[in-house]
Amino acid sequence: MSPSPSPTTGPPSTALFTDQYELTMLQAALADGTADRPCVFEVFARKLPAGRRYGVVAGTGRLLPAVEAFRFGETELQRLTGILDTRTIDFLADYHFDGDIEGYPEGELYFPGSPVLTVTGTFAAVVLETLVLSILNHDCAIASAAARMASVADDRPLIEMGSRRTHEEAAVAAARSAYLAGFATTSNLEAGRRFGIPTAGTAAHAFTLLHDDEAAAFAAQVASLGVGTTLLVDTYDITEGIATAIRVAGPELGAIRIDSGDLGVLARSARRQLDSLGATGTRIVLSGDLDEFAIAALRAEPVDVYGVGTSVVTGSGAPTAGMVYKLTEVDGRPVEKRSAHKVSHGGHKRAIRRYRPTGTATEEVVHRVGAGTVAPVPEEHDREITVPLVRGGVALPQPTLAESRDHLRAAMVSLPWEGLKLSQGDPALRTTLLGGADPHGAER
Amino acid sequence: MSPSPSPTTGPPSTALFTDQYELTMLQAALADGTADRPCVFEVFARKLPAGRRYGVVAGTGRLLPAVEAFRFGETELQRLTGILDTRTIDFLADYHFDGDIEGYPEGELYFPGSPVLTVTGTFAAVVLETLVLSILNHDCAIASAAARMASVADDRPLIEMGSRRTHEEAAVAAARSAYLAGFATTSNLEAGRRFGIPTAGTAAHAFTLLHDDEAAAFAAQVASLGVGTTLLVDTYDITEGIATAIRVAGPELGAIRIDSGDLGVLARSARRQLDSLGATGTRIVLSGDLDEFAIAALRAEPVDVYGVGTSVVTGSGAPTAGMVYKLTEVDGRPVEKRSAHKVSHGGHKRAIRRYRPTGTATEEVVHRVGAGTVAPVPEEHDREITVPLVRGGVALPQPTLAESRDHLRAAMVSLPWEGLKLSQGDPALRTTLLGGADPHGAER
Repeated sequence: MSPSPSPTTGPPSTALFTDQYELTMLQAALADGTADRPCVFEVFARKLPAGRRYGVVAGTGRLLPAVEAFRFGETELQRLTGILDTRTIDFLADYHFDGDIEGYPEGELYFPGSPVLTVTGTFAAVVLETLVLSILNHDCAIASAAARMASVADDRPLIEMGSRRTHEEAAVAAARSAYLAGFATTSNLEAGRRFGIPTAGTAAHAFTLLHDDEAAAFAAQVASLGVGTTLLVDTYDITEGIATAIRVAGPELGAIRIDSGDLGVLARSARRQLDSLGATGTRIVLSGDLDEFAIAALRAEPVDVYGVGTSVVTGSGAPTAGMVYKLTEVDGRPVEKRSAHKVSHGGHKRAIRRYRPTGTATEEVVHRVGAGTVAPVPEEHDREITVPLVRGGVALPQPTLAESRDHLRAAMVSLPWEGLKLSQGDPALRTTLLGGADPHGAER
Repeated sequence: MSPSPSPTTGPPSTALFTDQYELTMLQAALADGTADRPCVFEVFARKLPAGRRYGVVAGTGRLLPAVEAFRFGETELQRLTGILDTRTIDFLADYHFDGDIEGYPEGELYFPGSPVLTVTGTFAAVVLETLVLSILNHDCAIASAAARMASVADDRPLIEMGSRRTHEEAAVAAARSAYLAGFATTSNLEAGRRFGIPTAGTAAHAFTLLHDDEAAAFAAQVASLGVGTTLLVDTYDITEGIATAIRVAGPELGAIRIDSGDLGVLARSARRQLDSLGATGTRIVLSGDLDEFAIAALRAEPVDVYGVGTSVVTGSGAPTAGMVYKLTEVDGRPVEKRSAHKVSHGGHKRAIRRYRPTGTATEEVVHRVGAGTVAPVPEEHDREITVPLVRGGVALPQPTLAESRDHLRAAMVSLPWEGLKLSQGDPALRTTLLGGADPHGAER
C-alpha cells in the first residue's frame, strides 16, 4: 500500500513518485555538466477547468513534508539499477532538495497564469516535478470543486463522504482539501487521525436491513448512539420511516437522513411531517449524488446538512487541476518553449493582487524578479500573494489547516461578485504579466 | 503520507480507510446482539458510465492484502476513543476479517448488476465497505478506460504517463490498472518497484531549455542514453527539431516525440521527413491530451507509440466506477432495499457467462446460491465467472498481473463485436438474474 521506508528513521520515502524521464534527463545533465546550472521551475495552470471562475490552492501542507521525504534509500536505488548509470545513482544517494520554494499559500485563489509555486535550485530539481504536480493537481482540483459547494451551501454544513469513490489514499487527501475549502466534517477516519479534521457519520441501509424491522434498527441505533443520532429513513417508505423514527426516538431525535428520490420534494414533506410530530428541532440531512448545482437547487428547501460524495472527491467534472511544472529560468536568463500551441513566458515571477478600497480584488499582477526586472508601482491596496515556503531545503512554518480555511473564506469574499456564480464564465480576476503579455499565454 | 504502521510487524494498517458510520453501526449492532448475524455483502455497479459497453475488474490484487492488513492497532484505536464505546473498541482490537470473499477475477469484464465481489461473514464485515469500494472503484475506473485505449491502439504500444495528473498514490495504482488493461509501460517508478511493471521515459522540454541550444541538448541525451533514446523535437520548431535530431544522432535514432500541435498532420510530415533523412527505423511517439477517441483518430497515421496521461489516470471522463457494497443476505434470507429509485435484489449470488461455440459471449447469468435456490441449467459453453478469493480470512493465491492481463485480452476477444465500439451504446452483454428481474434493477 505504501512506499518503502526511508533509510533514516522518518517518513516513507517519496522519491519514486517520479516519472522515469526526470532521472534519465538528470543523468544526461550530470554527464555534460549542465545539471549544476541554477534553474527556476514554475508551477502554473494555463487555464481553469471549462467555465470555472477561480481555482483554490491546496496541498501545500502535504507537499512540504513530501519534499523533505524525497530521499533515495537502498530500496529506491535498487530499483534504479539498470535504468541509470552509476554516477547518477551515486548522486541520488546523496540527493536532497536544498533550494528554495515559494508560492501561493494554501487556501489562496489562483487564476490562469498565476505562478502558484516556484522552485529555485539547480537543474536537479527537475526530479521533484511529478511529486509536486501529483499533490497540487489532485488537492487543488478537489478544493476548487469543494469551494464552489461550500459557497452555495452558505452556512449549511457539508459532510464530505466520498471516500468510497476514490483511491483510498486520495480519499484522505480529498477530505483534507474539502475541509480546507469549507466542508464541516468528513466521514474518513484516517483524515481525522492524520489531519485532525472533525469526523462524522450517520447510518447505512445495511443497518436497517440487518434488523427484523425498521423500528428495531432505529431503537438499536438510538440506544447505542443516543437520541442525537441521525436515522436513515429511506430504506423502505420514507413517510413510514419518519413516523417510525419519531415514534422510536421521540421528538428530540437529532436528525433524519434521506439518500434517494427527489430530494427537494422529500425535504419539504419530511419537514412538514417532522413538525407535525413535534420534532421541530430534528434536522434533515440530504445526500445522494449531490454536486454544487444540486446543492444550489436545494437552497430554498428545508435542508439542514448536505452529505456530498462522488462529486467532491472527483472534482465535480474536473478531477485534475492541469497544472504544469516548467523550467522558466536558467543561469539567471528567462527560458521559454516557443511552439505554437503551448506558449510559456520565462523568468522567475511573483504575484501581487490589487484591491479596491472596499476590499474587492481587481487584478492580479505577475511580475518578474531578479536582475534587470522592474517591480510593479505600488498601489495603496496591494497584497503580496507569493510567500516563502522552503528555504535551503528546510520547510518554513506554515499556517494550520484551520488558518488556511479562514484565509480562503476571506479570499472568496474579496472576489468580484460575479466570480462566485456557478454558471460557466471567465476567470473572476485578470492575471497580467507586468511588461509582457498574459503570463504563459493563459487562456482566459 | 501513509497510514500508521500496524501493531505487528507487517504492512501499514488499512483499518482507518473507513467511514465513521461503519464503526458506529457496528457499535449499535454489538449492543443489541445483531452483530453476529451471518451476513452476505455484495459489490456491484448499478450501471456503467454513460455510453460505456463494458467494465474491467481491477484492484483485486491490491484489495486482498489490504483486507489482511485491516487490523486496529494502538494508533488506530486511539483515534476511535471518544467516537466509540469501550466494548466496540475492545472488539476492534481483536478484529480481523475471518470470513470468505469470492468474486470476478482481476481482468474479467463486468456489466451492470454483475456480482463483482461477495463478502460472507457476520455483520461486522460492514467495516470493510469503504476500503473495498475505494480500491475497486478507483482501479476498475482506470482499467475500464485504459482497456478502451488499448483496444483502439491495437498493437501499437501505449505508455502510461499520467502520474502528475492524479494523487501520488493513486498514480501508482493507476499505472497498475493501465498495465493490466494492456498498456505496455508506465513512467511511474514506484509502480515499477511495487508491481514489477516495465517503466519507460523520454525527455521533457526542460532538458532542451536547460541547454544553450537544441543540438547541445540532443547531443547530451544521445551521449548519455544512447542512440536508441527518444528525442523531444517540439520545443521550438518541429521540422528544425527533427533535422537537428537526425543530424546529431544519425539515422539510427530510436524515436522522436511530438507533444503538441495537430498530431495527425505532424506525424505524417515527421514520417516523411525522417524517411527522407534515411531514418526509416526511427519511431514516432505521440503524446499530448490523447484519449481513446484521439488514439482512434490517429489509427491511419504513422504513429508508433502513444503516450497517454490525464485521460487514463482520470478514467477518461469516468473517474469512479460507481460500485456499491450492499447487504444482500442476513441469516440465510435475502434482504433488499425497497425505495423507488434504488432497487436491489437480495441473496448471495454467483455468475456464469454463456458462449457460442465460436467463443463469442452471449449472456451473463446471475444466480442465487444457498438453500432453496436453483442453479442454472448447464449449457455446453458455460463458464463460471465467480472464483474464491479469500477463505476464512486468508487470501488465496491469485493470478499474477501478467496472467490477469492475458485474461482480459482473451475476455475482450469474446465480446460481441459491437461491444468494442467506442461510440455510446448499451452494455455489450445482457446480465440476467435467474428467476428474477435484472439483478439490482440494473440500468441498461
